[in-house]
Amino acid sequence: MHTNLRIPGPTPLPEAVLRALSQPMISHRSAEFKQLFKGLLADLQHIFQTESDVLLLAASGTGGMEAAIVNTIRPGDAVLAVSIGYFGDRFAAIAETCGARVTRLTFPWGQAADPEAIKAQLAAQPDTRAVLVTHNETSTGVTNDLGAIAAVVHSLGEGSPLLIVDAVSSIGALDLPTDAWGCDIVTTCSQKALMAPPGIALLSVSPRAWRVIEQTPTRSYYFDLKALRRRAAEGETPATPPVSDMFALRAGVDLILQEGLTNVFARHHRIGEYTRQGILALGLGLLADPRYVSDTVTAVTFPPGMDADAIRSRLRKEFGVVLGGGQGPLKGQIARIGHMGYVSEEDIAAVLSALRAILA
Amino acid sequence: MHTNLRIPGPTPLPEAVLRALSQPMISHRSAEFKQLFKGLLADLQHIFQTESDVLLLAASGTGGMEAAIVNTIRPGDAVLAVSIGYFGDRFAAIAETCGARVTRLTFPWGQAADPEAIKAQLAAQPDTRAVLVTHNETSTGVTNDLGAIAAVVHSLGEGSPLLIVDAVSSIGALDLPTDAWGCDIVTTCSQKALMAPPGIALLSVSPRAWRVIEQTPTRSYYFDLKALRRRAAEGETPATPPVSDMFALRAGVDLILQEGLTNVFARHHRIGEYTRQGILALGLGLLADPRYVSDTVTAVTFPPGMDADAIRSRLRKEFGVVLGGGQGPLKGQIARIGHMGYVSEEDIAAVLSALRAILA
Repeated sequence: MHTNLRIPGPTPLPEAVLRALSQPMISHRSAEFKQLFKGLLADLQHIFQTESDVLLLAASGTGGMEAAIVNTIRPGDAVLAVSIGYFGDRFAAIAETCGARVTRLTFPWGQAADPEAIKAQLAAQPDTRAVLVTHNETSTGVTNDLGAIAAVVHSLGEGSPLLIVDAVSSIGALDLPTDAWGCDIVTTCSQKALMAPPGIALLSVSPRAWRVIEQTPTRSYYFDLKALRRRAAEGETPATPPVSDMFALRAGVDLILQEGLTNVFARHHRIGEYTRQGILALGLGLLADPRYVSDTVTAVTFPPGMDADAIRSRLRKEFGVVLGGGQGPLKGQIARIGHMGYVSEEDIAAVLSALRAILA
Repeated sequence: MHTNLRIPGPTPLPEAVLRALSQPMISHRSAEFKQLFKGLLADLQHIFQTESDVLLLAASGTGGMEAAIVNTIRPGDAVLAVSIGYFGDRFAAIAETCGARVTRLTFPWGQAADPEAIKAQLAAQPDTRAVLVTHNETSTGVTNDLGAIAAVVHSLGEGSPLLIVDAVSSIGALDLPTDAWGCDIVTTCSQKALMAPPGIALLSVSPRAWRVIEQTPTRSYYFDLKALRRRAAEGETPATPPVSDMFALRAGVDLILQEGLTNVFARHHRIGEYTRQGILALGLGLLADPRYVSDTVTAVTFPPGMDADAIRSRLRKEFGVVLGGGQGPLKGQIARIGHMGYVSEEDIAAVLSALRAILA
């Protein structure tokens, strides 16, 4: 039975990515590697829609989030963590573990963050050094209005806090004009819309963020963004880079460039719509506020009495369709359909037809 | 031209590993993943020669070294960093960056650490909380007498400091009886003797180390070994695991198990001897003290007037032989031959014959 991997990451790997993965190993100090690395970083700037540095690290997305925090926040610094779900909560927990004084501004799961509430909180706590926000919340299928959030942060003027964005399930699928919106650090990873295996964290860092980083004492050797930038200028990395995963990421990025970023965004929007209409047509529900539905993940709710995990188990066993489950307080209550990266309407049609058969 | 990748890591990937790498992606929450993960950790215990937990992290070896430190050392704690080269210095730098009060005990590059000097230093600084030591120094081709070092550390009795070992270029190639020698944390990574791509850090953690970890405030979310252990018991990881690299590591570990650990050690010793005799027969020199030569890396010195980097460049261009260069103060002065993991006498014979042609 063919497996239709439709969890919200790691996402299925295209044939070209699988072929790239199985290239022979090369030296990470060779001219060949430097060319791969420099080309990748340049093309990632295009995908991140930024002229700032993009940095690469052997880590999962959580490692990238920690790198963003540990380089900019000193122990005791005030941080505003805006959370609309599981990964927003994780961002807050990372900051707390790194010693920040975290104020959590949480919204009900399924809702987006209210920019006005963020503005009020920042007014109440003017020493806030950074705002942590999730662009697309993978646990609920909600996309925050990041442009509006960025506008309220920057409305504070010159001394406004850094805007640090978890873009794990958005970069390469949803429009995120990093520079135009003034996002200071944007972090993502390889295994979502970029169509590569997990193992690479990526971060863009604005000039404003670099000024803060340069004034922040270094407390992590591995996550030191200054060292990463210094070595990247030479086409190298401070520690051994994840070479095979980089071969794969190169292939994934090539697929995005071939399709064109605007077309990629349009495809994700089209498939997002297709997924939501299909789910509603089956008589199932959407967890997300209709104004903020995500074009990369759809969280499906079920009528009372239906067991989401039992349905997911039948989908997997009888149809080879693998969906994500609920996280945190939603455990067992929802199913999550990933539709980012390597995805077409046919993939979603197969999910819908399997769901239809089980519901019948 | 066939490339003979003979740097001391990342090492060449066997065909079986390349095939494993290009398997389709799977869910990191599936039964299939749990089976892969649990089996891998169990087999790694055998390779680490330990009954303690082995943990797995998406990171390079440097990340594993930082994880060992940040979980056991509080800011201000006294640490003895024993260094015989570039990676010993790195271990000390990681500890310093994490806030430790580091005493460096350094030995000339090419020499091994003297256990008696370690004993004297520990006697002079009885509040030392941990000793950091490199088993095999990749920059110089020297293998420390880790058994003797462990014995002097443990001679301090119940309150002896933790023994934290960088085994990046030794595990899976050199005999390191973790439990028998009482090594508290041993860390390695995927891209050396384990024959997988870079991207995975591995750590074994003794019961004694766990007691220290439980009393050490958590300062890193990503490197939190307690969380890694808790989730590993369920066959899961706190953050998305490096799935494709784990497929590859599974294949690399299988090759080691098929050959048998004792045979693997014997092959590395045989090839180490073969390499050294071949280098001496060419009239070249060995950097390492003959009593502590490494069976995974050979550092080659050249007669005055010979340019090591120029020779490496010709080896690469004319023969497809890729060697490592000197690091730190040895930059440009030596060539390093990697002979760990996927290596046979034929691979080294090709290196020696290319060197012979160039020297002629």
